[in-house]
Amino acid sequence: VRRSVRMSVIHSVKLLGIGILVAILSLEGLNWLYFRLRQRCSGRPLKEVLFFPTTVTCIEHLFQPHPRVSPCLCRLPHGLETPFTRLLRHLLSARFTLDLCIFAFSSQELCRAVLLLHRQGVVVRVLTDKDYMAIDGSQIGSLRKAGIAVRHETGDFHMHHKFAVADRRLLITGSLNWTATAVQGNKENVLVTEDAAFVRPFLREFEELWDANDPARLSFGPALRELKK
Amino acid sequence: VRRSVRMSVIHSVKLLGIGILVAILSLEGLNWLYFRLRQRCSGRPLKEVLFFPTTVTCIEHLFQPHPRVSPCLCRLPHGLETPFTRLLRHLLSARFTLDLCIFAFSSQELCRAVLLLHRQGVVVRVLTDKDYMAIDGSQIGSLRKAGIAVRHETGDFHMHHKFAVADRRLLITGSLNWTATAVQGNKENVLVTEDAAFVRPFLREFEELWDANDPARLSFGPALRELKK
Repeated sequence: VRRSVRMSVIHSVKLLGIGILVAILSLEGLNWLYFRLRQRCSGRPLKEVLFFPTTVTCIEHLFQPHPRVSPCLCRLPHGLETPFTRLLRHLLSARFTLDLCIFAFSSQELCRAVLLLHRQGVVVRVLTDKDYMAIDGSQIGSLRKAGIAVRHETGDFHMHHKFAVADRRLLITGSLNWTATAVQGNKENVLVTEDAAFVRPFLREFEELWDANDPARLSFGPALRELKK
Repeated sequence: VRRSVRMSVIHSVKLLGIGILVAILSLEGLNWLYFRLRQRCSGRPLKEVLFFPTTVTCIEHLFQPHPRVSPCLCRLPHGLETPFTRLLRHLLSARFTLDLCIFAFSSQELCRAVLLLHRQGVVVRVLTDKDYMAIDGSQIGSLRKAGIAVRHETGDFHMHHKFAVADRRLLITGSLNWTATAVQGNKENVLVTEDAAFVRPFLREFEELWDANDPARLSFGPALRELKK
């Protein structure tokens, strides 16, 4: 009897051990799953909407790699965060690539930001509209002079997009052309997002338009084609 | 001894029971948490990107409450899903309200969709740009004649937005003006989303612009103000 009782105790202890093991494993699993799903849920991609027009403020600090020692002496308001400073910050966050697809580009501040990125080694590609490329104050020439790759649509209709993708990760898109009038005068909107559901289609669109407007593909009429023979 | 053995067996069984209970509760908790978080993650709002230009197809079926018995005899392609049919479908999904903030509106098909919604009892509000309101082919007059509330910006700059919010739930926004040239010719983009992080700011922007352009707030210069005295 004593032996059978001892067996039953051992058996109970074994079962108890298994129970505790199951409990521990369950709790571990619970923990793992909770953090995995929470990461998926709360690691939500950036979503920001900016509305224009914006008040004009000093933006010098955005172009400085480190906080300025001497304060900026210009007469514009300092230290204000506006839709335009937000836009510039997002744009200047590019580290590797900037794909820019823009109808009208005459804003000197935005041009300065793109030129700075180019100097920092970011691979910049600009796709624009052939008619608006040549308007007064267009910055496309400055970009080209700096050695940035620029292509333009050649069809009868407008390349009316106004979007940028930084590092194939961050999409900036909306109604805003990159002009001072749009930034400081018009009612405009800009969406900024890292949501891949939006970023991916825009990346595809950029690549398609970039390839379609490769100058090497342009035909220069029968005369040149004859020459090439 | 037998009593102490019996006590130890009872004790072991109790512990086993607690172990099993913890295991069951853990598994239940795991299950609950998994489904709760999965729901939060997978109940993702609609996110769609449409690119233009689009091929022109027959869109008659979109305006019919029920599938047509007799086939449409027009010469356009039938049964194709294009970015434009997607845009129309989203627009026509409005059941209660449609807030439309649009720079240029001359597309007859989009106007027909808005008029249909209005006839179906959807409360439509249209905010537009004063200069583009009067261009050739503008549909703003048709909307006004049908009794739709239209307001327009009165400042020196453009009301350059091109967005619509259906039922305070679905945002349609992008570079696309509601013109035939934009739909059939230009390179354009439209984002369609139910993501509240994007919808809410646009709703706020609409309400602000709608209030700011209330005709009752307009002043008609010193002459009229004198008359009112």
